[in-house]
Amino acid sequence: MKAAFYNSKGTITVDQGNIVKPGKGEVRLEVAYCGVCGTDVHIFHGVMDARVNPPQTIGHEASAVVAELGEGVTNVQVGDKVAVRPLRFGEAHPFDKGHKHVGKNLKFIGIDSQGAFQSSWTVPSYTLHKLPEGLSLMHGAFIEPLAVACHDVKIGRVKAGEHCLVIGGGPIGTLIAYVLKEKGAEVVISEVNETRLKMLGDLGFTTINPVKENLSERISELTNEAMIDCVFEVSGSAPGVQAMTEVVNVRGRIVMVAIHGGEQKPVDLFKFFWSEIELLGARLYEEDDYEEAIRIADSGTIPFEKLITKVDVLDNIQQVFDEIDQNSEGMKYLIQCN
Amino acid sequence: MKAAFYNSKGTITVDQGNIVKPGKGEVRLEVAYCGVCGTDVHIFHGVMDARVNPPQTIGHEASAVVAELGEGVTNVQVGDKVAVRPLRFGEAHPFDKGHKHVGKNLKFIGIDSQGAFQSSWTVPSYTLHKLPEGLSLMHGAFIEPLAVACHDVKIGRVKAGEHCLVIGGGPIGTLIAYVLKEKGAEVVISEVNETRLKMLGDLGFTTINPVKENLSERISELTNEAMIDCVFEVSGSAPGVQAMTEVVNVRGRIVMVAIHGGEQKPVDLFKFFWSEIELLGARLYEEDDYEEAIRIADSGTIPFEKLITKVDVLDNIQQVFDEIDQNSEGMKYLIQCN
Ligand SMILES: NC(=O)c1ccc[n+]([C@@H]2O[C@H](COP(=O)([O-])OP(=O)(O)OC[C@H]3O[C@@H](n4cnc5c(N)ncnc54)[C@H](O)[C@@H]3O)[C@@H](O)[C@H]2O)c1
Ligand SMILES: NC(=O)c1ccc[n+]([C@@H]2O[C@H](COP(=O)([O-])OP(=O)(O)OC[C@H]3O[C@@H](n4cnc5c(N)ncnc54)[C@H](O)[C@@H]3O)[C@@H](O)[C@H]2O)c1
Ligand SMILES: [Zn+2]
Ligand SMILES: [Zn+2]
Repeated sequence: MKAAFYNSKGTITVDQGNIVKPGKGEVRLEVAYCGVCGTDVHIFHGVMDARVNPPQTIGHEASAVVAELGEGVTNVQVGDKVAVRPLRFGEAHPFDKGHKHVGKNLKFIGIDSQGAFQSSWTVPSYTLHKLPEGLSLMHGAFIEPLAVACHDVKIGRVKAGEHCLVIGGGPIGTLIAYVLKEKGAEVVISEVNETRLKMLGDLGFTTINPVKENLSERISELTNEAMIDCVFEVSGSAPGVQAMTEVVNVRGRIVMVAIHGGEQKPVDLFKFFWSEIELLGARLYEEDDYEEAIRIADSGTIPFEKLITKVDVLDNIQQVFDEIDQNSEGMKYLIQCN
Repeated sequence: MKAAFYNSKGTITVDQGNIVKPGKGEVRLEVAYCGVCGTDVHIFHGVMDARVNPPQTIGHEASAVVAELGEGVTNVQVGDKVAVRPLRFGEAHPFDKGHKHVGKNLKFIGIDSQGAFQSSWTVPSYTLHKLPEGLSLMHGAFIEPLAVACHDVKIGRVKAGEHCLVIGGGPIGTLIAYVLKEKGAEVVISEVNETRLKMLGDLGFTTINPVKENLSERISELTNEAMIDCVFEVSGSAPGVQAMTEVVNVRGRIVMVAIHGGEQKPVDLFKFFWSEIELLGARLYEEDDYEEAIRIADSGTIPFEKLITKVDVLDNIQQVFDEIDQNSEGMKYLIQCN
């Protein structure tokens, strides 16, 4: 059994790991593929050392096959293909109002505890969602980020025919755009990176580069002045925060997907009052978002192959992270863990 | 027939006005009482000269008696007591999505056209809401700001038993607090002005002065750590904008009532993501908010007398505005127009 360990800023080594026998309510998995998330890259950059506990196995966008059941597990069987919802629920707190996926005592598996960049992985059985026969394990590694996108679109209450703008066409923004298309919405993506713009255009999306064109004017043209019913802020940038209030129409929604850390950014609060717009925070996913993500992935409407920049084996994980550092334009890197 | 005219910064004169014969679909009113709104004081300060057209009759918080009907008016009869919803709807625009009260072509009567500080006032019949027999015309002048409060609480989707915080205990914040109480919510008001704090305490509200006490800690104590389900930002201040995100719990709502003009204020966007909170803009009112305001006013649960700082006649309007300028702690000044 092999496992990758994040040791310190810039270093991930692959070593012999320990097979963890599944306890009561746990399941041991053979990890198939695990995608590299922006958060993993953050950890690799050493900025989350206070939260992770090096040497630690990270990774949380995994597909896997069930290898061994702990006591009392009935929801999966050995040999099942699964996607993992990497949330360990803690004790309920009145502040949470029952929303466990954002609860005060939530632990994120792959950050707060051992993750999926290893050949054998033991997790609570309630984190598992069975994959349909026809869905490949490689595509199954997209279920986690796709569930993020499904959650965001659910929070945005998007209906067929609505005009939507995705600000930031990275992996998450692109998956949101696909989910929106699947819901029958009209989608435009705003992105500043030319390589990503080219890729999104090739995928058939209408794109705008707000640095080269006037975003509001282009959107006014595209929507016959109706402007945007639901905006997704997925860029994490100050210009994105300005754009989100500029393009939205009366009672329009803005879903805040990006993680705006650091210094607080100015927001046009006047526009909230004036047009009765809504800002809706969205974090992670709930159980139904995973089921929806699996349904959409299985429907075949998302060309996952075109979103995969590279697949490499666990032994090469250090090179993969180094390559991501050189190539911030890549879309999704997958690590084959078995 | 007498009318008050705002002429220029700091000057309102009372003069002979013209009785406007009601046209088709219009109604001529004898104005009973009209409250002075913060916006009227703004206009008096000369900061809205670009929008108002001096000499102009301002005022929009009116109760009145129907005096004369224009052609085709059937919703009211001569002698009816009414409250006026001072909105003139313009042509629909796709941007508005049918929400006329915030539509692109909305005109506000009393700012964009002649208002209620006059003895005779002619308005579209659709702006009128009949007052019940038992509700006095003096209390009827509170329907407009109370409808603002009803709209805000509706936008906040507040349910009985929820913990609510009103930031800013001015006239609007205080009426919001009363509507919340009527809905069965637990209400706390945050206010920095000692005179207003004293008054709110005397009215029976739980208050916090965030300059003297730690707001979040007090709220944590008061709610047993559950914190706030719905915050109303009615202070228009930068500290209010900071407080609103600090006190709100998971999936909590923040209703943006205050008009944040000027330079954009920093907002804690991280908290939106982290706890999936919502920011909901609220502006003016819709028809049903007026009906709800009339119902609540008629129920007798709001001690309007205690909210009235002074009632004076139209002839003294200049002195009233001067007095408001001296006494920013006053709650509601009413002008008797007939
Ligand atoms: N809400 C959640 O639970 C959740 C889950 C995963 C990721 N995230 C967050 O979502 C965001 C996006 O994730 P990602 O992995 O796709 O990141 P990413 O960095 O790959 O994508 C962001 C994209 O925004 C583009 N961009 C930057 N400035 C822009 C601007 N002014 N206008 C338009 N586009 C602009 C960048 O070029 C980039 O392509 C990040 O902030 C991430 O932390 C949130
Ligand atoms: N949304 C709408 O349609 C609508 C309608 C009417 C009024 N308004 C707006 O609502 C706001 C309130 O109106 P008002 O007439 O009650 O105004 P107001 O100025 O009388 O009340 C604001 C109160 O906030 C208090 N305050 C200031 N800083 C504070 C802080 N840091 N914490 C707590 N309290 C603080 C002030 O002492 C004051 O009592 C204004 O911004 C007004 O423009 C909006
Ligand atoms: Zn992730
Ligand atoms: Zn007003």
